[in-house]
Amino acid sequence: MKKIGKSTFEFEKDIFVKGAFSLVSSKEAEGVLGKYFSEVLEDDTLGEKTFEKAERAMHTLAIKKILKQQELLESEVDLLVSGDLMNQLVTSNFSAREFDIPFLGVYSACSSFTESLLIAGTFISAGAAKNTISIAGSHFSSAERQYRNPLEFGNQRQTYSQWTVTGMGATHLSLIGSNEMPRIKKVTVGKVTDYGIKDIANMGAAMATAASRTLLDYFQDTKTLPTDYDLIATGDLGKLGSDILKDLMIEEGFPLGQNYTDCGHMIYSSLQNSFQGGSGAGASAVVFNSYIYEKLKKGEFKKVLLVATGALMSVTTNQQGDTIPCVAHLVMFEGGKC
Amino acid sequence: MKKIGKSTFEFEKDIFVKGAFSLVSSKEAEGVLGKYFSEVLEDDTLGEKTFEKAERAMHTLAIKKILKQQELLESEVDLLVSGDLMNQLVTSNFSAREFDIPFLGVYSACSSFTESLLIAGTFISAGAAKNTISIAGSHFSSAERQYRNPLEFGNQRQTYSQWTVTGMGATHLSLIGSNEMPRIKKVTVGKVTDYGIKDIANMGAAMATAASRTLLDYFQDTKTLPTDYDLIATGDLGKLGSDILKDLMIEEGFPLGQNYTDCGHMIYSSLQNSFQGGSGAGASAVVFNSYIYEKLKKGEFKKVLLVATGALMSVTTNQQGDTIPCVAHLVMFEGGKC
Repeated sequence: MKKIGKSTFEFEKDIFVKGAFSLVSSKEAEGVLGKYFSEVLEDDTLGEKTFEKAERAMHTLAIKKILKQQELLESEVDLLVSGDLMNQLVTSNFSAREFDIPFLGVYSACSSFTESLLIAGTFISAGAAKNTISIAGSHFSSAERQYRNPLEFGNQRQTYSQWTVTGMGATHLSLIGSNEMPRIKKVTVGKVTDYGIKDIANMGAAMATAASRTLLDYFQDTKTLPTDYDLIATGDLGKLGSDILKDLMIEEGFPLGQNYTDCGHMIYSSLQNSFQGGSGAGASAVVFNSYIYEKLKKGEFKKVLLVATGALMSVTTNQQGDTIPCVAHLVMFEGGKC
Repeated sequence: MKKIGKSTFEFEKDIFVKGAFSLVSSKEAEGVLGKYFSEVLEDDTLGEKTFEKAERAMHTLAIKKILKQQELLESEVDLLVSGDLMNQLVTSNFSAREFDIPFLGVYSACSSFTESLLIAGTFISAGAAKNTISIAGSHFSSAERQYRNPLEFGNQRQTYSQWTVTGMGATHLSLIGSNEMPRIKKVTVGKVTDYGIKDIANMGAAMATAASRTLLDYFQDTKTLPTDYDLIATGDLGKLGSDILKDLMIEEGFPLGQNYTDCGHMIYSSLQNSFQGGSGAGASAVVFNSYIYEKLKKGEFKKVLLVATGALMSVTTNQQGDTIPCVAHLVMFEGGKC
């Protein structure tokens, strides 16, 4: 593994993406990517008494499912890396106690999924791990309660707001594999960027600048262009944030073109009243571990950039009048069969 | 870097601990380790209007100071890794926007300092980084407000409670150095452990089982004994938690002996009314980056285990009647001049 340019790290060993699992609620399943998800929850409370416990149960279920799908024993997993949106990462932390696996908790809000992939990949690259599980996710109802208003309050939503994805996405990375499989080749670790936006309903706008900074770093570090990629997917900028990002990248001389999409923007159909689209740590995690992974596996996508974006404020910083710093961590994949 | 045993990773390259910086408030400076701290704040609000902003200013100041001490430009630092106790890691995340350095946020409560060291060390070991900064810390007043009661409430403290350390500890790890310098040789990534304790004032007891699990994993993985180390320091178990750990390790057949201490227990003097001692992400961070680092540098400590412990609950999980899962990440150092 070596550093190229200012912020990008290139894996010299192949980091194989051996398996992917996505778990979503019925709302995500009714969206345009419905057929790609591994499993759909009929009841997004999973029979639990609180939304926080439901989110945790969903996290545990996703790990159990990917272990089973990959025929992995807990003792064969060298590292579990996870992030979520709950205070003190309680979804990841409480769920991790169910597994006899060394565990690292990470936090970069809705960029936690790519952060978990790049840390796990580095352990594999260093020779420290053979098999790792990276996971991130979110739950609409627990996120609303923690960050905005409890559902019982019944508030109206701003037209520029987004809808937190109820879903978990888990990925099995491995040192062992073949060129038939998708691989991680490079990562760019984000720098925290603050464009001065204070409106917590408008996180797409706040995060667009972080996405543009990381993408610019990546293109400059690797001396490549947006047209070199079959898919460039941001995490959860939503429609408005994506439009801002597209404008920013045109201004910078790196127009993203037709192969650009946003996981949050694409996950719901326009009939689903989710305004600017999906958001949350689950957005990029479930879209990657379904649609993007399938296309990489079949070789339909040969080169993909996944750039999950995180808005790093808290309720307290918002109440104290602070702006919203953001970050975006990028992972570059190559497709299988090529 | 290779895995040995179940949870331990050994660095094949030396990871040099090139510099350390500790910043504390006057309370910590009045404790028994006072003379070892790099810098003492006369005013622990740093002139800010809120405790949360003060904690953030302290974090930024510590990074600026270690960069200056180490004569490092931001462009020479490949990675900044940080964790803290505030919701959504706002101390680390907001502070990181001040620096043009790739940034990873991590969370394992009061074990965040050792987590930040082991992730930075892995990037160096993988060949991806030459210089990294790891930092963690806490502030008494912001932690009281977020986790317990605002100071203005003036509540009485339980005799088995601990006092959150106001302090930041930052470490410069490097690929380049000499055997005159302290080095990281091994790390053990913790597994989340839940012993069923619900009392958030008694975190030492909750965390002791996580420390014992990680220490047992380490001793078994490396086939060593507690007597092989000049110092075994847990993070912030406090007096009560340390006593429980000592008993647990005797039961397991690995008595910790005279070289065992706890950073939280040792930081304040018994005259300072801090009950079971210090706690918080700052406890292990400031004790390592002062006293322990100095002794390692002089070769007075030749082999040291630092086992920071984290209690992973949130206010919400506590209010929902959940128990307290805990984790402990271990870093093994060798002293300089040996």
